[in-house]
Formats: sequence, C-alpha cells, structure tokens
Amino acid sequence: MNPKPSYSIIDFPEWKKLKKHAGIINREENHLKYLIGEKGRMENFSLKGAGIFYDYSRQRVNAGTMKLLFKLAENRGVTKQFKSMTDGEIVNNTENRAALHTASRSFSADPVFVNRKNIMPEMFLVRKKIKEFTSKIHSGEIRGSTGKVFKHIVVIGIGGSYLGPEFVAAALKHLAIKKMQIHFLSNVDIHNFGEIAASIDPESTIWIVISKSYTTSETAANTNQAYEFMKQKRLDPAKHFVTVTSKGSPGDDPSNPVIASFHMFDFIGGRYSVTSAVGGVPLSLYLGYDVFERFLKGAEEMDMHAIQAPPEKNLPLVAALISVWNNNFLHYPAQAVIPYASPLSKLAPHIQQLNMESNGKSVNKYGDALGISAGIIIFGEPGTNAQHSFFQLAHQGRPFPVDFIGVIKPSYDQYKFKSKGVTNHQELCANLIAQPAALACGKDDANGAKRFEGNRPSSTILLNDLSPENIGRLLSFYEAKTVYEAFIWGINPFDQFGVELGKSLASGIRKKIAEKNKNPEYSFEDADPITKFYLEKLF
Amino acid sequence: MNPKPSYSIIDFPEWKKLKKHAGIINREENHLKYLIGEKGRMENFSLKGAGIFYDYSRQRVNAGTMKLLFKLAENRGVTKQFKSMTDGEIVNNTENRAALHTASRSFSADPVFVNRKNIMPEMFLVRKKIKEFTSKIHSGEIRGSTGKVFKHIVVIGIGGSYLGPEFVAAALKHLAIKKMQIHFLSNVDIHNFGEIAASIDPESTIWIVISKSYTTSETAANTNQAYEFMKQKRLDPAKHFVTVTSKGSPGDDPSNPVIASFHMFDFIGGRYSVTSAVGGVPLSLYLGYDVFERFLKGAEEMDMHAIQAPPEKNLPLVAALISVWNNNFLHYPAQAVIPYASPLSKLAPHIQQLNMESNGKSVNKYGDALGISAGIIIFGEPGTNAQHSFFQLAHQGRPFPVDFIGVIKPSYDQYKFKSKGVTNHQELCANLIAQPAALACGKDDANGAKRFEGNRPSSTILLNDLSPENIGRLLSFYEAKTVYEAFIWGINPFDQFGVELGKSLASGIRKKIAEKNKNPEYSFEDADPITKFYLEKLF
Repeated sequence: MNPKPSYSIIDFPEWKKLKKHAGIINREENHLKYLIGEKGRMENFSLKGAGIFYDYSRQRVNAGTMKLLFKLAENRGVTKQFKSMTDGEIVNNTENRAALHTASRSFSADPVFVNRKNIMPEMFLVRKKIKEFTSKIHSGEIRGSTGKVFKHIVVIGIGGSYLGPEFVAAALKHLAIKKMQIHFLSNVDIHNFGEIAASIDPESTIWIVISKSYTTSETAANTNQAYEFMKQKRLDPAKHFVTVTSKGSPGDDPSNPVIASFHMFDFIGGRYSVTSAVGGVPLSLYLGYDVFERFLKGAEEMDMHAIQAPPEKNLPLVAALISVWNNNFLHYPAQAVIPYASPLSKLAPHIQQLNMESNGKSVNKYGDALGISAGIIIFGEPGTNAQHSFFQLAHQGRPFPVDFIGVIKPSYDQYKFKSKGVTNHQELCANLIAQPAALACGKDDANGAKRFEGNRPSSTILLNDLSPENIGRLLSFYEAKTVYEAFIWGINPFDQFGVELGKSLASGIRKKIAEKNKNPEYSFEDADPITKFYLEKLF
Repeated sequence: MNPKPSYSIIDFPEWKKLKKHAGIINREENHLKYLIGEKGRMENFSLKGAGIFYDYSRQRVNAGTMKLLFKLAENRGVTKQFKSMTDGEIVNNTENRAALHTASRSFSADPVFVNRKNIMPEMFLVRKKIKEFTSKIHSGEIRGSTGKVFKHIVVIGIGGSYLGPEFVAAALKHLAIKKMQIHFLSNVDIHNFGEIAASIDPESTIWIVISKSYTTSETAANTNQAYEFMKQKRLDPAKHFVTVTSKGSPGDDPSNPVIASFHMFDFIGGRYSVTSAVGGVPLSLYLGYDVFERFLKGAEEMDMHAIQAPPEKNLPLVAALISVWNNNFLHYPAQAVIPYASPLSKLAPHIQQLNMESNGKSVNKYGDALGISAGIIIFGEPGTNAQHSFFQLAHQGRPFPVDFIGVIKPSYDQYKFKSKGVTNHQELCANLIAQPAALACGKDDANGAKRFEGNRPSSTILLNDLSPENIGRLLSFYEAKTVYEAFIWGINPFDQFGVELGKSLASGIRKKIAEKNKNPEYSFEDADPITKFYLEKLF
C-alpha cells in the first residue's frame, strides 16, 4: 500500500527511519570516541568546496545516518527548490516575493526573471553606481558641506541593515582604507547615538541610512536625531546623508535631498542583504569597492557550489542535514558558532539573526503546524575566549553542537614572538585542534567532578585566510545552509511575521506616551494594569 | 514512614510536588494571558530591593508555585549556605577554598576569617593601594619610560580577568576620564594583539596583566608578545607594565620588575572577581577610583540584601528559584538577557560566563550524578536590536525565558528630538513595555503564519540609571542569583574542572608544534589520524 504523499516532513518515510536510527546512534557503541577511530573517518566525513574545508567527522553520524539524510533531502527535492530560488521563483510564498540574494552577487551574463522582468541589469547598475560613488568619495570629489573629506561613516540601520555589514566590516578591518572609521547606529537607545555623536567629527561624517521601507521606527528616530544634530552644528544634511532604500520610499524622495540614493529590492530580505547595496555602500566606502567586489565573488562561488554540487559533496546542504539531525533527532536545542579568529567576532550575532529569524517558525509554508521544532538557538563568541567562558557547560553540562571555524593564515603575520616554543597563532590553532577532540572523546575519572562524558558533536570549518573572497564564501555558506534547512522542514525562511505583534503593541504604547508628552494631564487609565504600571514608572 | 533525608535535590518532597505542579501550570487555564490578568498580579509578583526593581509577574508561576519553591529553598537551607559563604566557610569544597567575592566589596568593620585569619585588612589594603596608584597615574606622577602621561590602558587577561572588567567599562563609559582609552587583549589570536598594537601610542600605554597563577597560556603569550613589542619600540617594559596576580606568582617576582603589582586571592574565583583588584586596577585607571568605589558600594548593598532579605523579598533568591523552575520543571534549556540599554551590551557575555561556567555541571558537590540538567545556555544582545534579530524564534518558534532590563534615566539626556511625538529613549521604553506583553499574551489568527501562541515567560528588571552603584547592584544580583541556583541544586558553583581536558590536550599539541618549529623534519606520526590531519594542514 502506497501512503498518500504528505507535505509534512514528519510523515516522510525517511523521517520515521531517522527517528529509529537515532536510537542506534544513541547506543554506547556509537559514542564519538569510537566513531572517530573508524578507518577513513576523516576522508569520508569531510568536504572541500568553493575554497572552504568542512569537516563533520566529529558529528554523531555514520554512513547509515548520512544515507537516510540524503534520501530525505532527495525526496524533499531541496536542490530543485534551491535552484528555483536562484531562478527567481516566488519562494517567499507568504509575502508573494522571490528571494534573490544570490542575484545581488552574480556576475553572470544570464538573465534572472522576476515577474517576467530581467532584474540583472538593475543589479549591475546598483553596483556600478556604488563603484562610481565610492571613487568620488575617496578622491575627495564629493565632500561634506564645509569642504572636508569624509572620514567617519555612520551606518543607520537595524537588524539585517546592520548585522551583516557589521560582520563583514569587522572581518575585513585589516583592509580598511586608511583613516576611514565606521560606526553602526542601530539601536534606538539614545546611548548608541550619544556615544557615536561624541566620537565623530561631524564635518567629515557621512551618514548612510539603510531601510527598505524607510519607515522602520528605530531607523527613522535615529535619522531624525542625526539630522537635528547636524543642523545644530550648522551643517547641511543634504551634503552628509546617503540613503539605501526601495525605489519611491520616503528616503528616495527628491524633496528630501541627499548626496545619493541607492536602491534595494523587495526580493532581497534584510538578513540576506549584505551583498546588495545594504552592504555595498558602507563596505565600499570603508574598504574600497574592489574589496567589496572580491567579497561578492567569493559569495557567488559558494552560491554556484550550493546549486551545482551533488548532495554528497554539497557543503551547505550537508551542514543543513546535520543541523536538522542534531535538532530533531538528537534533540540539541542550540548550536554555538565559535570562530578561532577575533575578526570574526560578529559572525555569531549575524548568523544568530540569519538563522533564528529565518527558521524560528512553528508552521510550514502553508501555515500548518510543523509538529516539530524548526529553529534552534544560535550563540557564540570567538575561541579561545569561549573556552574560558561558557565551555564548562559544553564539556560537563548540557551539551550543544559547535561549529569551530579556523583560519590558516592570520592577517597579522609580523608578530612571530614565540611562547613555550610556539607563536600566538600556533597556540590558537593548538586549541582549535584540542577542543573538538576533548568534546568528542571525553575522559573517564573516578572523581565525578573530573569526569568528561564526551560524545559532544562538532564540525570544523577551515578558511585559508581572512580574504574578502573567503568572507563571502563563509557568508554564502551559512545563508545556503539556513535556506536548505528551511526547505527540508518545508518552512518559508524569508518571512518574519513573529516580529509584528511586538511592533504593533509598541506602536500603541508610543501613541500614549506621545499624548502624555503633549498633555501632562493625560492619564494612562485605559492600559492594562501591568502596562499602566510601567507607563507611570517610566514616564 | 519518614524517608531518610537525601542530599540529592530530586529526592526532596518539594521537588516531586513541583513536578506534579508543573502539569497544572501547563494547562491552558494557566496560560500567561490569564495569569497576568489576576487581581494584584503585579503587586504580588514583583519586588524592590537594594535599589533594583524585579518584576516576575510574567513568569509562568502562581502563588502555589512560589510557595513550593520557597519551601524547597528552605529545606535546602540556601540562605544559611549563602551566609556561610560570605562568612568565609570552605564552600568551594572540591578545591578546598572559601568563596569571598563579597569581601572584596565589603566596607564593614567586621572581620571575615579564612583559616582563622581575618582577610579584611588585606582587602582594604589592596583598595588603598589601587587608590594611591590611580591618583599617581592620573596626576602624571607616574609616567611611561619616555615621560609621556598614560592614555591607553591595555588589559591582558582572559575569561574572568576580562569579561567582568569589560562589562563594567562599557556600562560606565559615559564616566570615563577624558582621553583615557581602554582596550582588552584577551584572545591569544594574533588578530586581537595586532589590532590593539595598531591603535595605541606605545609611549603612553600602560599594560595591565591579570592572571591569578600568571601561567594562563593565552595571557602569558600575549604578555610576551607585548613585552617584545615594547622592547622593539625601545621602551622599558618595567615602566609600562602592571600585574594583578597572586602573591608570589611569577608576576609578583621582583626579578621581573613592573610599575606595580596588585594581589588577588585564591578565595575569589575569576568569574566573581570584578570587584577585586581584577576590576579595581583597570576600572580605576579608566573611570577614577571614586567611581570604582561607588560601584563596590552598590554591589555591597545588593550583597547585604541577598544575605538579609527574607526569601519572599529576596531578589536574587526569587530569581534563582524561577530559573530552576523554568529549567527543570518547564524545561526551557536557555535564557536570554536583553538589556534595553546599549551600554549594557557586555552584560550578556559576562553573565554567560558567570552562570554557564558556575553551574554547567552534571554532578553535585560530592561528585554524584545530579540526574537533572543544572546549567542552561545564556545569551543575549541589547534591545531593540534583539527584536530585529532573533526574537522571531522567541515569538513563534522555540520559546525561551527572557530577562528584560530597563534603565529609567538615560546617560545622554541632551538629545531630546522627538519622532512620532516621542524621544528616542521613550521609543526604546515603549518597546521594553511591549515585548514582554507580546510574549506573554500572544495573539490568535486564522493564518498559522500570523498566530502567536504566547505563554512565553519573562522577567523585567529596572534600574534608575546607569550609575556606578546600579551597575554594582546589577552585577551582585546576577552573582547571587547564580550562587543561589547552585545551592538549590547542591552543586559547587566555584570550580570549573570542565575546562581542564581541552587545556591538557592543547598542551600536548603545542609541544608537537614546538618540536616542528625547532625541527622541520619532525613528523606528527604519533598523533591520532584527525589531529595529525589538522597538524599537517595548519603547520
């Protein structure tokens, strides 16, 4: 009897087989300390693609696990879905939009159609405009209202308009154009504004306002505050502001003059937008357009890999399958991202948004309950810092899978002084090698306090160096992994309705505060008791 | 029949009752949207103590839950244990040490005995020494080797020698002494060193090396690198280095001259040490000794509250009980710390270490298996940033409890421009009010993608402002909460054996790399296949 095909992933035969299979992997004989000793383990459970090395030999999987996972992916048709996404199909069905972050870094001559219109010319045009603009800023052709060359870049944006650009700026800081400084004004908290205002020279400051709708409350409030600040310094905002926004938004309105306006598109979501003008404008000003383009080319290379590589050789797909396995079958609710490279300190916050906002859903793309947990908690700090912080829990408390990320060649190779016979970079790498082994193998001890159970899974990702290309590849790897996870679960990773309720409640509260500002006699009577308490306490 | 008393918390009668009680709380009728509507909810489920307001009205508890939790705490004798800790008893039994972070901020004339010796004179002496030293640095009496006044403070330390001082420095940055800059060199990653080296003026730089044993690999490697750097600049390290370390450690050796050496003690663990010389030296140089002392006084005030307040009025104890309830009975594996204040951006990383390293254990203090999960995953970013990042998961995906933290008066009150009728600070507060309500109440919708289940628990903590006292109170609140949790579970929150295995494996790997550095013919043959692969790949 052939069961009727169901859209729900938990009804797939492989899903049921995987549940049973998890029981086998949970047996003592399949403890990682035994699995990693198997002949050819490293060769069979590691991949290289698009310049990145991905080792999952210390994940709690065997050949049988992978076979079932690949079968699941095949039956779900995830590679076809991925291709459809890059071809411009309406994969963001709940918002009736395409999801074309891949187009924003494509250098291909092939057209990509959205609603029968080839969008590629527009993609190229935005890049060309960024390149020309950057060159004029760096040459001093465009200057501030008092004639000073721009040195301070302040990016006003929140969420996807902030975390991606911040991650890349930090990762590539070693390539920053001399004397250029970048600041991120994301939080509506006045402390964020106050601190930046105190550290810039307003005359040599260029503000980049990034907002698709140009109506995001936090960004609007910060933009207004910045306008006011510049006006009080008797500087003409029109000569100090740039916008990155949708065509025809209030930020793209000629009656509100700015130095330049760059377009973003509804088919690229905030958390996937760092390769669009969202990252392009600030990163090109900070690092140079050529560096930004190299970053795009790295991302494009990984995109091609994610589309073309067969499932068994496909880094982001394999990583996505392991993520689903760890989440739904081994029941780990969280995952740490631990780069052994301080410049990647903003990777975890970016992936936190990318993954948790994309996949933190409880319904499939048709709005039906999933019946399983999709998203997990992503967190992380650079190693070895993390070892001296929360790794106690990883080793002896509640286990969580880890992505270890290593960089073979450091950006500062002039510092070679050795301690205990090794350079600092070698000391760092020794720890990168030791931690996954310690987590996997554990160590017995008669004293319970000194016992390590081991069997803690991890992956290890290696980059050759912190080149713009590698940062692009790493970014695209995590984006594709996130999307592949979603396609396996059958959810829409491109909407974020979960942020709406808080926004609408905040809007109601804002109105009450505004009333009170106008009329000190205004009473908060009609609010619920707890809200009323806070309104009275805070205002 | 009276069962024999057991040390194991899961054998306590209240534990069993709480398990049963959780079934009642999980019923639809006890959804938070109903609980918060109960008369007097806010009054009955909020507390004020030591200047901090703590509201747990949106936690999934009722009067019955709290009654059982208080009974559990009483039977466990946690307030007595807490008092014993502050009295100098050997509460860190696995390492045979007292745990006296509270003494480091005590201004009381009462003695505190450790092994029959009153330690308070030494506590006061360290503070006096810090005060005098700070004054000489700020007045220019002590200068660098070329006569320049010190302007750059570089703190070399990792884990507890880094996260606490960084948190406080960021929180109180608005009070920093003009022109003083602070940098944290924690990671052994040469990128961390390289970036700091590129941004300081070596002649006006004072390096503060913080290490209890003075043998921590990362700190030693960074110190050596910094010495070499200064020597290459022809600057005398003896006139640019300060140490904070144990009496008699290699960092306290007169044959290795430094400007000054300050002592730390084995009865104060790294993650509890920010109120000792560990925080005292860098924070006094950065903020002034008077600010540091105000910070200590705030911490002391909360310590007294944690010791003296009856359980029902005791903020950290109530918070600890709720944490245990959420973890072990409602089964939330993680908790977010979300300060609606950018200067508190380093609070979550600090609490992450404090709590996860203290309580990430699987055995009780006698080494017996706990049978339950103690530690949880702590993570967080400032709001509203977090709303635009990972709150999608909080609202519609995997739920996790949240500590919301608000600040009534911002430090920058000169920026009062209004958007939509409210100041930026008011906009921030509107969101602080809206989020817990949205999480608790949820919202129904026929469209599954727009449905919010609600029933997501949170607490709200309010500080009047970001004064040094309030930062001290907040720090002590989280320390006491962490310790109270541990005392309930019966674990030792002061050891961290879980970090040892990785260290010892890294040490073995380091030796191999050092061999290879000496002898390029050296072969990594005797390593296991995976380690060998990485050694060959990386070196």
